[in-house]
Amino acid sequence: MCCTSLELIYVHSIVESVGEGVTELAPGDHVLPVFTGECKECPHCKSAESNMCDLLRINTDRGVMIGDGKSRFSIDGKPIYHFVGTSTFSEYTVMHVGCVAKINPEAPLDKVCVLSCGISTGLGASINVAKPPKGSTVAIFGLGAVGLAAAEGARIAGASRIIGIDLNASRFEEARKFGCTEFVNPKDHSKPVQEVLAEMTNGGVDRSVECTGNVNAMIQAFECVHDGWGVAVLVGVPHKDAEFKTHPMNFLNERTLKGTFFGNFKPRTDLPNVVEMYMRKELEVEKFITHSVPFSEINKAFDLMAKGEGIRCIIRMEN
Amino acid sequence: MCCTSLELIYVHSIVESVGEGVTELAPGDHVLPVFTGECKECPHCKSAESNMCDLLRINTDRGVMIGDGKSRFSIDGKPIYHFVGTSTFSEYTVMHVGCVAKINPEAPLDKVCVLSCGISTGLGASINVAKPPKGSTVAIFGLGAVGLAAAEGARIAGASRIIGIDLNASRFEEARKFGCTEFVNPKDHSKPVQEVLAEMTNGGVDRSVECTGNVNAMIQAFECVHDGWGVAVLVGVPHKDAEFKTHPMNFLNERTLKGTFFGNFKPRTDLPNVVEMYMRKELEVEKFITHSVPFSEINKAFDLMAKGEGIRCIIRMEN
Repeated sequence: MCCTSLELIYVHSIVESVGEGVTELAPGDHVLPVFTGECKECPHCKSAESNMCDLLRINTDRGVMIGDGKSRFSIDGKPIYHFVGTSTFSEYTVMHVGCVAKINPEAPLDKVCVLSCGISTGLGASINVAKPPKGSTVAIFGLGAVGLAAAEGARIAGASRIIGIDLNASRFEEARKFGCTEFVNPKDHSKPVQEVLAEMTNGGVDRSVECTGNVNAMIQAFECVHDGWGVAVLVGVPHKDAEFKTHPMNFLNERTLKGTFFGNFKPRTDLPNVVEMYMRKELEVEKFITHSVPFSEINKAFDLMAKGEGIRCIIRMEN
Repeated sequence: MCCTSLELIYVHSIVESVGEGVTELAPGDHVLPVFTGECKECPHCKSAESNMCDLLRINTDRGVMIGDGKSRFSIDGKPIYHFVGTSTFSEYTVMHVGCVAKINPEAPLDKVCVLSCGISTGLGASINVAKPPKGSTVAIFGLGAVGLAAAEGARIAGASRIIGIDLNASRFEEARKFGCTEFVNPKDHSKPVQEVLAEMTNGGVDRSVECTGNVNAMIQAFECVHDGWGVAVLVGVPHKDAEFKTHPMNFLNERTLKGTFFGNFKPRTDLPNVVEMYMRKELEVEKFITHSVPFSEINKAFDLMAKGEGIRCIIRMEN
């Protein structure tokens, strides 16, 4: 799970000032603003396994600062509400310190800004959650930005076969750059995609990552993993009325189904390390950035996103 | 998943003779016969994670030896078919070497025989699959033999709170001996048991193990684990028409659902070590054995099982 619209993010995130009591950040620090936070005090933050901070977990409806419950923005005396904890469609914003990850100041902010959301979500779904063993076979459902990042994660983890599944065949060529070695378009087959994948892989894939949010794809992603050891990971955000259904024997035959939120990365603890992966050239982020527009053309960026064109579009504040 | 009826097993399993090419066993070896096998050659046996041997996986319909496809038993010239790979309701049986676990000859066969099936299934579901961290809270759904073994496993793993859930309140007193510290009878509550458990545990249990086979209990066992880190393990064998249903957000919120077969123990590799756990007094098996009858009264043992009376009944061949 992640918040896709936040990819349209202000590229030069540098701390301008800090509030009273903030000791971990100082003016001039380079940072990534994140839609979900890490208070470091709650049971989730203290758990080695969870990144679902009780205090700062994504909240699309809050619109105000945690603490005093007020907005920090106004125009002509009327409040303007915050957006998903970051409010980064502006030259200056105010954020909770728990939603700000301090990163290596050498990292180019106009590149690593894409690590604040979907790219880390897909990457982490593979490297933190699915954890494909070296030489394994991984199926990726949905070849949008998150799915491509999941493929990149599977490649980094050492998977040998990475099978991309998408209804849009035009995505397949692009996906090769992200590690996909094979493709399946469910439209090309009369039988369920689970069966197609089982035939291609001698019984099932070792890992699968679901990045569409479609509940049928979730069921397929689960049922296509090999009995005995297969692990499926759900990433895509489902419809509120969705229902996941399967025969329980599919579990009894030693399959595992997990879900992940933001690739299980703890924003403040882990994102600086993801930036370092990029700095060491283990992770390439440039290939995710297909467009860039000045802030004055932000609606063009939204149009691209709505049409599913390109992968990520950067908003430049400076023109 | 396991095969409950096999608990009614011949107690003195000693190798009488071995077939051509068998080198791992010799006459006089003390062994446990197991309803599922380990060929040590197939992808499942070679996987560190799976025990679902391709060659010798449980098959209740086979009735003959793998290899020549013939029965080794007859009466008056008419074949008698094998039973679930073991055929242990007899003084002598013939089994595939892959279904025979060689154990410490010092171990009392009239005690450790119960490790061939349900007890190991429940124990392994906890220690091999759910893996509750020390100090964690575990819910056990169903307090029959498998569930009590799962509680015993949770206790051995170091869980602090072990909450037994059963519709039959008479089981609660017995369950204390197996590590259960608290009990919930869903009949005592008007709200769903997931909510009862969430209230008792500040949001959910850390681990749950489902040992009833009822699909509603499976859904409850999954939905009662804590978001962020909770792991639910399915053990009970479901009805063939059962359907597991849940909202996919329950996964996205970082819950994990797994199933297990025979507690993920590889019969030949791992059962000797389970026997050693007993020999070191880490695992107590005597408390699972509530009845013992001579072979001439085997139907009494079936009656006890059918009525759900006691935990395990041993069949004595010698009277």
